Order: sequence, then structure tokens, then C-alpha cells
Amino acid sequence: MPVDARRTISDLQQLRALTADDHGAQRIAWSATWLKARAWFQGLLSELPVEHHLDAAGNSWTTLPGESDRSLILGSHLDSVPNGGWLDGCLGVLASFEVLRAIAEDFHGKPPITIRLVDWADEEGARFGRSLFGSSAFAGTHTIPADRGRTDRDGIRLEEALRQCQIEVERIGDAAAERGQAGAYLELHIEQGPVLEAMQLPLGVVLGTKGVERHAITFHGQEAHSGSTPMAVRRDALAAAAKLALEIRPIARKHPDAVATMGSVKTFPGIVTAVVGRCETTLDMRDLDAGVLASMLAEARAASERFAAEEGCTVEWSRIWSIEPIPFDPRLIEFCDQAVRETAGKSHQLPSGPLHDAAEVARAGIPVVMMFTQSLAGLSHNPAENTRIEHLELAVEAFDRLARKTMHWLNV
Amino acid sequence: MPVDARRTISDLQQLRALTADDHGAQRIAWSATWLKARAWFQGLLSELPVEHHLDAAGNSWTTLPGESDRSLILGSHLDSVPNGGWLDGCLGVLASFEVLRAIAEDFHGKPPITIRLVDWADEEGARFGRSLFGSSAFAGTHTIPADRGRTDRDGIRLEEALRQCQIEVERIGDAAAERGQAGAYLELHIEQGPVLEAMQLPLGVVLGTKGVERHAITFHGQEAHSGSTPMAVRRDALAAAAKLALEIRPIARKHPDAVATMGSVKTFPGIVTAVVGRCETTLDMRDLDAGVLASMLAEARAASERFAAEEGCTVEWSRIWSIEPIPFDPRLIEFCDQAVRETAGKSHQLPSGPLHDAAEVARAGIPVVMMFTQSLAGLSHNPAENTRIEHLELAVEAFDRLARKTMHWLNV
Repeated sequence: MPVDARRTISDLQQLRALTADDHGAQRIAWSATWLKARAWFQGLLSELPVEHHLDAAGNSWTTLPGESDRSLILGSHLDSVPNGGWLDGCLGVLASFEVLRAIAEDFHGKPPITIRLVDWADEEGARFGRSLFGSSAFAGTHTIPADRGRTDRDGIRLEEALRQCQIEVERIGDAAAERGQAGAYLELHIEQGPVLEAMQLPLGVVLGTKGVERHAITFHGQEAHSGSTPMAVRRDALAAAAKLALEIRPIARKHPDAVATMGSVKTFPGIVTAVVGRCETTLDMRDLDAGVLASMLAEARAASERFAAEEGCTVEWSRIWSIEPIPFDPRLIEFCDQAVRETAGKSHQLPSGPLHDAAEVARAGIPVVMMFTQSLAGLSHNPAENTRIEHLELAVEAFDRLARKTMHWLNV
Repeated sequence: MPVDARRTISDLQQLRALTADDHGAQRIAWSATWLKARAWFQGLLSELPVEHHLDAAGNSWTTLPGESDRSLILGSHLDSVPNGGWLDGCLGVLASFEVLRAIAEDFHGKPPITIRLVDWADEEGARFGRSLFGSSAFAGTHTIPADRGRTDRDGIRLEEALRQCQIEVERIGDAAAERGQAGAYLELHIEQGPVLEAMQLPLGVVLGTKGVERHAITFHGQEAHSGSTPMAVRRDALAAAAKLALEIRPIARKHPDAVATMGSVKTFPGIVTAVVGRCETTLDMRDLDAGVLASMLAEARAASERFAAEEGCTVEWSRIWSIEPIPFDPRLIEFCDQAVRETAGKSHQLPSGPLHDAAEVARAGIPVVMMFTQSLAGLSHNPAENTRIEHLELAVEAFDRLARKTMHWLNV
């Protein structure tokens, strides 16, 4: 029997009613509202012949045992940013639930392979600044020494917040045991960007997650009085930074999917009557091709040094964070493309700029693909985040098709 | 008898010892340290045949009555910014004192015209953000309704702070009575800029204070995810602001003495992973020629609108503050030029970018000129502010010459 996509939409609406306030979704990981969302979700499972448990990193696993221990994992995350939308993360969890339910019915509770549903813990990293928390523990790429002492705005340590959810930070690596005989991981997510909408397509196939280079770049010039310092003798740190803010754009535009963003500029002393003596900026560059990303970074660095020299300044770089590009599995990309075509007539393949738990799963060596559904106006992490109901319905149907194709492949 | 410039330097050193700490001068107006500086200064006057009083705005007046009531006013300000230097303001007051003393001696206590020394109250506006407080009251350009309720960092109102110094804010306009038969005002000050040092000149003649246009300029674009938003569809408010930050420089450089500064840039949301949706900047433009200043402002405004349109943004301007250019008196400029040449061999005429009490006195219709002495590295409002001792000595000598020429002119 086919999936009932309207049920997924009704579930999403229920979850919104339960966990959003006037400012949007409030399912911040490790919070009471997040735990409430998870308890509600567990309630949905009660009529299914499934086993449920939390792993050592707080990921929530629901297993429908099959004839074989080989498993297909479906999932996403229930946690949200503060004042978030009604779809980011939970669409993937609730669509996976609907697919799991349909498979359980179709195979009278015993499919040929094991089907698992995962709700990853703390994808967003909204409270402690550590995103992909649970999936990185699963993948063995977790970073306990760096994360243990992280604190939230109230000074509460990550370690303490986890302990209140019965998670011991030192043991989160044990989540790797969940990999078992996983044969594939599939994730449905909203695009969170404007590409599919601009192409008037409801669905897309994700080629992988872009590599990210994230740097803090500080220009040092000379603070000076805005009234008494002639233009010719200024060493204006803002001027060097402004040149870089503009130059990163042609650097990115040389490549079809590359992006480069200066998201933060801080000026010191930062008053109307002083030439800027120090300018702190951030740079975020992304591309699916590691070579392209490396060359963009090198070009930006060279440009920053040239601009610093032109303005009598110096420049200093420090890496905030980086991750390599993570391409998804070619066979699964092909299945996903077929499923999208069969459901919506037309497909489009695109890289994901935002990171997702799927990237961590791929790092564990498990074949992975993601499906995107259109986001209206590209908005996400925002209560205005939205997708047309008919597109959500197509997404659940196409995701079901993808799961069936993958199940069949794993069973051969 | 000639002035004894070494005495002025010794006075400056005494004042520093009395009112500076490890972080610099702390003679913030209306503070206990400022009152201590004023009391010390009054002590210096005790051997002279002078009358002393505070006017209704807290300006401190010392009068050496002459044969005629026509008066020559010399002065500057004893107040400093927090962590200030040892010369800004107090050089002018203490050099004026030395000149007054020499004139009193030369004329056996009764010069042909009246010589007055003024220490203006709160030139810096460091505590309440209202600079030229006392001199504007003298000139009748004071702004009681806007200033009455100003508060300092501790929430203390300007009105209260004044009352503790026996000043009633409602009555400060009575300081206009001090104008009397004032025939000229002369002020010696450090340059606070790098021009004279670059020309290897100890002294300069000030042509006037530049007009200032000070504006807040905000660009509105669209906040967007740095990973999922293609370069081609971004509406990046920072890009528009960066273009303006660079464009104000050629606009200013068309004119020999003009300056334009973007001193503050704030990005919103201002995080590494978001395209800037709103960018708040400040612009400060200055020139001695009102027409030049107006055309610079018009060019900057047109450029900002062009850049906003190019980036799919909008821009909004709001004036923070402005003042017209205030040219000094041509006859006094000529006297000052002669005095500088006679003392240092060579002179240079330049506008002042920073404002000074002299500008307010000029607005009252009194002929005014200022003399600058070189600042090392252009530094001021900083404990590292400095001027070579030999330049300070030349400054006191040249200022004495200027005072004698002006006295002679007023007596004719």
C-alpha cells in the first residue's frame, strides 16, 4: 500500500502545535520542549512492531527488524533552532516514519531487510554551537575534548546538559555500535535555499554537501582622528576589509555552485569620528569540489594580503572551522533521481550548501543520499520557513519510492 | 620682557603630575580631578593683579584690566578626555597664562587694552557627549532643551552634574555677557594630526575649522543562508556598504583638504553563516569650504543609492550632526603667519579638522585665529600624545608674538 502523505502533513502540524510558540519552533536540543517532541514521536510508534532506544550520544533509534540484519536507515532530526520553522529536520523524521509504517504494513511486520529510523541528537548545535553532535558520534568524528566544556548563554556546560538527558559525554563514541550492518542512509530535507523554487521544481537530488572553509580575518591599520588625518596618510583597516568583501564575489562566481560570504564585520574603535584601526571580518566559502574550494581560499588569502599592503595594513587569518566536501553515493543518487522523476516528472541534481547529518553518515563509509524539497523564498531557520503542501506530499511519495528502490538494491 | 616658555613646560608637567594616572590625563569636565586642575590653576594667578570668576556656564575668566575696556581674549580648555594626553587644551591655557603674566609685567599691571584669559568648560564633551559646552553658551549657540537630560554612563544627568559645580543649566546662556567689548580671541593648540610633522614644521596657522556632515547610513538587503543561497540571487547589504566605504575616498580626494571617513560598520545578523541583511554605517565628511562639503555629501548620497540599487538593497540616511565651516579672521591669520615666521622661519596655513572652542567664539562674531604646534605621529586623545619640547617652546614664543601684534591692532 502507498504512503499516506497527508498523514505526514497532519503529524507536522501536530508537532508544530505542540512545540512552537508565537516566535516559531522551540525544539532546541537538550531542552524540555525537545524532549516533549521526542516523547510525542515515541507515542506515534506504539502501534508498530518496532524496538526503540537511545544510543550513547542521544540519537533515537527505531528498528523494524527484517529477514536480514542488513539495514536501511531513514532519518533526520527533530531538534530546531530557536524561533525555527515547522519543517527543518522534522519533515525528514516524519516522512521516514510514514515510509516505515507503510513498509511494515506491506510486509506484515517483517520486511526482507531491517528498516531503521533515526532522529539524530542536536543537529543544529543551536545551544552549544556544536552542530551534527549525534551523527558525528555515530560516525566516529566526534570531538569530546573540544566540546566537553562548551557552555550555553547561561553558562551551563554541554556536559551538564547532556547528563540531564542521561548522556555521558565521555561515552558518546559508543554510538558507533549503531552502524551495525547499515547498507544505506536516506534523508529527506527542505532545500533551505532558492534554487528549486527558481527552477519551479518541487524536488531535487542532493549530490553531496559542500566543503566549507570558515575563517576569521582581521585587518590591522592605524586608528586616527577622522577630522585631522589627511586621506593620503591613512591606514584604514575598513578599506582593506571592504575590498575583500567585494573581491570574494568574483572569486566564487568563477565556479557554478561555489559561494563565498562575509557575514560579520566589526570595526574598532567603531566610532563616527575615528578612522578604523582594526577590522575583524569572517569568511565562509563552500564548494562541492575540494580543488575548487582550495583554490578559492588561496585566491581570497592572496587578495587579502594585496589589499592589506595597498592600505598600509597587515592581515591575519585564523581558521574557525572547515570540513571537506562530502559527495553522496552515485548509485543512490541515481535511485533518487529516478524516484523524483517518477513522482514529479522532472528532477534536478544540486549540491547542498548547508551541512546535514547525512554528511556525517557518509563519513562513516555508509552509502548516503538526500532528497530536497522546495523551500519558499529560500527561507529557513525562521518561523516564515514554508513549503507548498502539494510539494510536501510529492516529497513523501518520492521518498517512499527511493526507500523501496534502495531496499530492493540492498536485498539483492 | 620676553615670555619664559620653559615655565609653561614646567607648569604642564606639574599639571600632569597632579591630574594624570598610569592611563593618562583624567581631567574630565565636571569631575573632581577637573576641579582640582582648576583650583591649581587659580593658585598660579595669585601673584598677578587680576580678577577671577566663573560665568553662568562654568567658563573660568581671568581679567587683567587695561587702559581700555576693549579686550583681547586668550584661552583654551583644561578639561581632557579620559586617558588623555598632557597637551590637548591645557597647552593653550598655560601658554596664555605665560603671555598674560609677561604682558602684566611689561605694562606694570596696566596694559593699553584689557587682557582676558578663558578656560572654557567642557570642550571635550567626554562625559555627556556634548562638546564645546561652555564656549557655545558664550556664543549663544547652546542647546539647553537637547542637553538638559543628557546622562553619563552611570545615569547621572548633565543637569545634576552641573548643579554640583554650582551651574544652573537653564541659565548658561547668561555667559554671553562675557563677550563685552571683546576685540579678538586667540587660541594655541596641538595639531592632533600629522600634517606639520610630515612637513617638518613646528608651527602652523589655522585657517578655520572645517564644516562637518555626520550621517548614519543603513543598507537593507536580505538575510540569507551562506551555504544555500547562490551568489546571483543575493541581496547583500554589506556589499553595498563596502562599495560606499571605498567610494567616499575618491570623493574626498578631489579636494586638497577634504576628508571622508566610515568609522563604524555593523552587520546584522552578523554571523559567519549568513549573508548580511542589514548593514549600519556612519559617515563623517569635513571641509573648510561649504560648497565643497555640500557637493561631497551629494556625491556620497548618490553613490549610496547607486550601490544599493546594484545590490538589490535600499538605503536610508539620517543626519547625526552637522556644522558649517567656520573661517577665521583674515587679519588675524596674517598676524599669526607673521608671528610663526618670525619665530620658526617658516609657516604653513591649514584648516582644522577637529572642532575647537575658537569656532564657537567666531560664531559670536568675534575675530578669531588659532595657532597649531606639531603633534608627534598625529596622536591625540591618547596618553602617547606628545610634542617636542623645543616645539612647545617655539609655540609659546610665537603665541606671545601673535598676542602682541593683536593687542597693538586692537589699540589702534
